[in-house]
Parts: sequence; structure tokens; C-alpha cells
Amino acid sequence: MTNLIEKTIHSEEIFSGKVISLHLQDVELPNGKQSKREIIKHPGAVAILAMTDDKKIVMVEQYRKALERTIVEIPAGKLEKDEEPALCARRELEEETGYVCESLELLISFYTSPGFADEIVHLFVAKGLTKKENSAALDEDEFVNIEEISLDEAIQYIKEQKIYDAKTAYAVQYLQLQETVESK
Amino acid sequence: MTNLIEKTIHSEEIFSGKVISLHLQDVELPNGKQSKREIIKHPGAVAILAMTDDKKIVMVEQYRKALERTIVEIPAGKLEKDEEPALCARRELEEETGYVCESLELLISFYTSPGFADEIVHLFVAKGLTKKENSAALDEDEFVNIEEISLDEAIQYIKEQKIYDAKTAYAVQYLQLQETVESK
Repeated sequence: MTNLIEKTIHSEEIFSGKVISLHLQDVELPNGKQSKREIIKHPGAVAILAMTDDKKIVMVEQYRKALERTIVEIPAGKLEKDEEPALCARRELEEETGYVCESLELLISFYTSPGFADEIVHLFVAKGLTKKENSAALDEDEFVNIEEISLDEAIQYIKEQKIYDAKTAYAVQYLQLQETVESK
Repeated sequence: MTNLIEKTIHSEEIFSGKVISLHLQDVELPNGKQSKREIIKHPGAVAILAMTDDKKIVMVEQYRKALERTIVEIPAGKLEKDEEPALCARRELEEETGYVCESLELLISFYTSPGFADEIVHLFVAKGLTKKENSAALDEDEFVNIEEISLDEAIQYIKEQKIYDAKTAYAVQYLQLQETVESK
């Protein structure tokens, strides 16, 4: 709706890093008043709900410095410049888990933190997994533990807050919905 | 797992704003090498899946400067310092929509962007809604359009990318799951 638009009066880049940049903006509100906005720009990311043939979900446990703890997540990674999300998903799945997939379908895309960031996550479902012979394809500076867990275990991990992020919670709930639909 | 920990060698606050702060950290990786982390600190937030007695979902359309567009979201807002999430949820629901609720239950909490930010969202389900007489309780500088939509409309909004953020997509999928379970 046009009546909600916030016009940019001034925008300044405060920081530009490897992953994110920070922009301070003066905006004009719909009532003519001014306000400030703190905006993070991010290249976007992919996440992959990868299912093995015996219905296990491939998870990665990794240390998240922002949280100062490890959490268990579906595989994910940032888009390279101009990278097509589906290609990025195949690349990240192989780099993080050593799996290649036969089928890959986009489930949903969503913004993670629209209040302050433009990060978008493209969530894919990957099936027909095959482990690469040389599965030491991990990024040199990436340290993760791979786990393959059942849906019930994933639900338990959510209760225990080992799974604790939006994209993984969404993916687990998606599988709950699929299972409920199929059992009808 | 302790073997994944990234130790902080140096941390510097680059920016501290109204909503977020930005920290640049030098970390020691598990292999002894060093790397840099760009970390956003955020006070955390609540979101409210508010259901009317006739099974409509209360949505707010608002302009998101980070995205330069409006999106349709469940009501949400930042935690004040030391504010209890359930109190914040009641406050935000009333401020944004004019509704007070009889029952409020925590559905799930999740981190939205663990790769670079510590923002957590506490997602509540609110029922037994009553419109306050004086519903002009909106924050002075908050501009939103309220909509009450059915689950089918919400699913359509996701397809049309009018609903486009993680917490709202999670909430809509939760209702799909509830409806599927109930119809069994």
C-alpha cells in the first residue's frame, strides 16, 4: 500500500564487511515526520531439508558465534554474488554434508528478520541422496558435526532447544504436516 | 559440542543504535586458525498468532524499510529492556491491533538469523480476542493496516509473497498442521 511508504531522505553506509553491511537511513514517515532506520544488508542464503531414503533428516551441528553456542540446523549457506539459489543449495549440501541429491525443489522463500535485515532464505527439499566418495569437501574453515535424525528426534530437539532457529523449525514442522497429511 | 567452540580473541563494537548493535570479533577456530565474525546484537522480539472467534488470523501490513516494500505479518515487536515476553506480546498485540486476549500461550521460540544475529522471536498464540473501545492505541510513529484473513487466504498470501517472512510462514504452517490434525 502506497500510504505506508517510508521515503529515504539520507542513507549512509556505516560498515561493509565480508557478510553484512550496515546502513543508517533517515526516512520520512507517512505523517511527514522523520525517523531513523538501522538496516543490515545480506547477500541472502539457502537452506536444504535433505531426506535420506530411510526418512532421516540430515542435520549439521555448528557453533554460532552470534549465540555463543552450537545449534543443530539443516544445512545452509550464503549465496555467492549472482549465484542461482538452486546451484547454491547443491553446492552447500555437498560442502557441508558430502551428499549430492537427485531431486531438489524449492519449498518456500522467506525473509528472516524484516525489521532490520534484508536476508532472505530459500528453503529447498532434497531427495535421492548419495554420499560422495571423497566427502572431505568441507570448507577449510567450516567445522560441523553431521547427524541424521528421525522426525521424532527432530521434534524432541526442538523441545530441548538444540534445534533453535526459524528455518529448521519451519522445515521440521513441514515434515510433521506432510506426515499428518499422508497418514490421513 | 566443545570441539566446535570459537574463542573470542578480540571484540569491538562498531555501532550501537536504537535497535541493533554491530560487533566485529576476531575468533580462534577449532583448528587454531583465526577468522573474523560480524555479529549483530538485537534485544529479541515477540510475535503473536492472534485468532478471532470466527477463525480469522489478525495480520498487520507494514512497510519494511529493509525490504523497501510492505509485507503482511502477524503482529510483532521488540522486547523492551528486561521485559517479560508474554507481557510484551500482550502490549504489542494491543498497540498494533487494538485487541486484548483472554489466553496467550507460547508456541515456540527461535533465532531468526543465527549466522550473524542473536535476534530471538518468541511466538505466541492468542485467543479470546476483544477489541478495546479506544483502539487508537497505535504507537505514534507506527503505520500499519490491519487485516483479518482466513487460513486459505493466508496460504494464498504466501504464494503471492505478500506474506514473506519466517515467523508468519511458520505461524501459517502451524495452523495448517492443526487443521489437518483436527480433520483426521
